[in-house]
Amino acid sequence: MRNIKLLLEFDGTGYSGWLRQSKPGVVTVQSVVEQAVQKLTGEFSEVIGCSRTDAGVHAIGYIANIHTNSSIPPERFFLALNPLLPGSIKVRSSEEVPPDFHAVYSATQKTYRYYFYFDAVQRPLFCHRAWNAGRTLKLPVAAALKTANAACSYLIGEHDFSAFRAVGGLAKTTVRTIYKAEVKQESEAVFYLEISGNGFLYNMVRIISGTLVEVMQGKRMPQNLAEILQSGERKKAGMTAPPHGLYLYHVRYE
Amino acid sequence: MRNIKLLLEFDGTGYSGWLRQSKPGVVTVQSVVEQAVQKLTGEFSEVIGCSRTDAGVHAIGYIANIHTNSSIPPERFFLALNPLLPGSIKVRSSEEVPPDFHAVYSATQKTYRYYFYFDAVQRPLFCHRAWNAGRTLKLPVAAALKTANAACSYLIGEHDFSAFRAVGGLAKTTVRTIYKAEVKQESEAVFYLEISGNGFLYNMVRIISGTLVEVMQGKRMPQNLAEILQSGERKKAGMTAPPHGLYLYHVRYE
Repeated sequence: MRNIKLLLEFDGTGYSGWLRQSKPGVVTVQSVVEQAVQKLTGEFSEVIGCSRTDAGVHAIGYIANIHTNSSIPPERFFLALNPLLPGSIKVRSSEEVPPDFHAVYSATQKTYRYYFYFDAVQRPLFCHRAWNAGRTLKLPVAAALKTANAACSYLIGEHDFSAFRAVGGLAKTTVRTIYKAEVKQESEAVFYLEISGNGFLYNMVRIISGTLVEVMQGKRMPQNLAEILQSGERKKAGMTAPPHGLYLYHVRYE
Repeated sequence: MRNIKLLLEFDGTGYSGWLRQSKPGVVTVQSVVEQAVQKLTGEFSEVIGCSRTDAGVHAIGYIANIHTNSSIPPERFFLALNPLLPGSIKVRSSEEVPPDFHAVYSATQKTYRYYFYFDAVQRPLFCHRAWNAGRTLKLPVAAALKTANAACSYLIGEHDFSAFRAVGGLAKTTVRTIYKAEVKQESEAVFYLEISGNGFLYNMVRIISGTLVEVMQGKRMPQNLAEILQSGERKKAGMTAPPHGLYLYHVRYE
């Protein structure tokens, strides 16, 4: 049996997240990919995904792996699979990996991006793709970026991120290491947070994004991030930014 | 009666272009905006648009104007109109303009962008938004950009663009002036042509885009653009790139 690693991109709009669910009528990314694999190989293979993304969350560099008896050459597997997938989910590449490779347990670093903009109007071309935080950016762009990145600096390193975890998170430890956190301007209107860490708690990137947007709006000072971290209290942090601005961008394996 | 200028953004996916049509079941951007205006003001006003965009073409900076008896302050008109419009069409601003302002006849310059990428796989997050020209970029990116921009330089200035006009174009003269034509890299994967001129023939930007992509693919030399222009023959130019990569970006008025 071969272990094949898949690199996926998907538009999460309309899907109930990654994880297969038993409820009828609920369509998830995992179940759609598993059905396509079964159609291709004639056998059911669990598609092990690197992360349980929420409904509406997107992925540019999602990693999954499957164990299969298929004789299709691993590096051509994605080309055979794609015609069986909808336009909203595609596999960008595939390769054979050692038997013990596991999309979750072998991951050493994940990078997310969160896209947002500030406008009085919901922009049609960013619909389902970036969060409109309202016409609330009073600072000049350079100053807003500077204060956001000053706030980001408090996140770098090993911290207890309890304050940035949604109720319902089940992780045993709330200590995570953040390697990089940076807010950049993508285009005239659009900003994004890029954040890398050894792991993330439930809704952690979305709560950090909601808090950083409040810093950019002048509602919080950058050093407030240090106070939130120290408090360990979810209620001290900002709002949970909506799912449609979030992208799983890259997963690193050793 | 007031003349109000509207700045629109729309996702052209699923619309049969801008222009109102009499065929039943055909939904166009103009008809949707006209219905919203009528709902808001209680009277029918023709929404005069700056350009007849094709089905699937998008707009970031589309200009339209309407004559109305509405007492809504012109600079707040867009805020009242937006709740009556679908998420795929929004008005970004509105202002009163002199009675003789006309979205078509007063325009002095139009700028389009054409977005494209080169990949073996149709990317879900660019679906309906950028053209996948296939896994055909053999040149390094810097070299591909250099040769594309060398080709662009032949387009600048006043020329007869007959060779870049689709059959069915009705313009009386085929002479147009191009002020700017440049191919840039938007992100790791995505490129765009930005082109400004005093006007464009039917499908002209899409035929230019298709031809420039062939230059980037090494199928044509940059100076081939001069030969195509001189010939005046449509068949000498490249393919018509598909509509979903095209964006009306900006319209200038004196």
